[in-house]
Amino acid sequence: MIQGTLYIVSAPSGAGKSSLIQALLKTQPLYDTQVSVSHTTRAMRPGEAHGQHYFFVPVAEFERMIAEDAFLEHAQVFGNYYGTSRETIEQVLATGVDVFLDIDWQGAQQIRGKMSDARSIFILPPSKEELDRRLRGRGQDSEEVIARRMAQAVAEMTHLAEYDYLIVNDDFNTALLDLKTIIRAERLRLERQKLRHDALISKLLAD
Amino acid sequence: MIQGTLYIVSAPSGAGKSSLIQALLKTQPLYDTQVSVSHTTRAMRPGEAHGQHYFFVPVAEFERMIAEDAFLEHAQVFGNYYGTSRETIEQVLATGVDVFLDIDWQGAQQIRGKMSDARSIFILPPSKEELDRRLRGRGQDSEEVIARRMAQAVAEMTHLAEYDYLIVNDDFNTALLDLKTIIRAERLRLERQKLRHDALISKLLAD
Repeated sequence: MIQGTLYIVSAPSGAGKSSLIQALLKTQPLYDTQVSVSHTTRAMRPGEAHGQHYFFVPVAEFERMIAEDAFLEHAQVFGNYYGTSRETIEQVLATGVDVFLDIDWQGAQQIRGKMSDARSIFILPPSKEELDRRLRGRGQDSEEVIARRMAQAVAEMTHLAEYDYLIVNDDFNTALLDLKTIIRAERLRLERQKLRHDALISKLLAD
Repeated sequence: MIQGTLYIVSAPSGAGKSSLIQALLKTQPLYDTQVSVSHTTRAMRPGEAHGQHYFFVPVAEFERMIAEDAFLEHAQVFGNYYGTSRETIEQVLATGVDVFLDIDWQGAQQIRGKMSDARSIFILPPSKEELDRRLRGRGQDSEEVIARRMAQAVAEMTHLAEYDYLIVNDDFNTALLDLKTIIRAERLRLERQKLRHDALISKLLAD
């Protein structure tokens, strides 16, 4: 069986990362690409489903999983744990499906250390002005809140050089095509193709 | 200025490599992709032009260039020298244009040693039967000649594991799309994108 590829996708908020990943999943057949479902200890919100939005687990179980090194990465945000289970990811990859992980630079660093085959993609907004406009959103937030968001966005972007690919999300459809191009090209890499065309190669080399 | 990428393309004869490269050049704007022009000591044939099909040089000059390590790779075939000049390639790459080198596994090995940034692509025919059919051509050659061609094709294919990408030329348009996908994805790699979007990145990170 051909292993899928794990893609780490990071971006400052306002770069359009989530919309791009959602659009990607819609255009690709389901068996090709999936988004990873994380574990969390936070309470389930109305409309959320266990195993679809998150795996909702008690704190004790999450901490047991940390102790057992069950996470490729995990973090604590506002008192709640969030983590990516190695087993969840590896089960999907083993079926040949590519998995997308929407994660920040810190999670990306943890995962690179544990999954050296993972590919990472950083997405940038097209300009400072556009980033500012997107971070302002509906104009209901204070300047202080917006300044904090911008500082976080800049902090995230200082790590872009750690990624394999860089996409500038200027035109949405071009950025989506960029994303698809990377996936398609990675599937053309020798290691993947050698497995896929194993029978053909054996036949061609038999003389 | 953004450096172009040097692509090494190898295949057994009968895999359709030349047609693919020709089709690629037609669909891409000229400033994007070029095929490398080699040096040779063989005589110019009717219809050939110096600097277009080859740089035709005397044996003494070719041997002087070998002594000066002017070639990324060179070989002697039926008593004539053929070689790829480092200066020719580097001048084109410096203008940001990607260069395609149509070359066998031995030339590919020489070039990898001298240009570690080069990407290499191997192209396979879709089946042994189809390869046989293509090698037979118009049916005017002896079985001995065809057997020798097949042995050469197999010898070339034993080196496919040395390449970065593998394309199976089953459907021509799919194989052409594969080739374009690789080029486009390589342009999305961080090192290329960082140079292309240098001004944007500086602006986004300035806070």
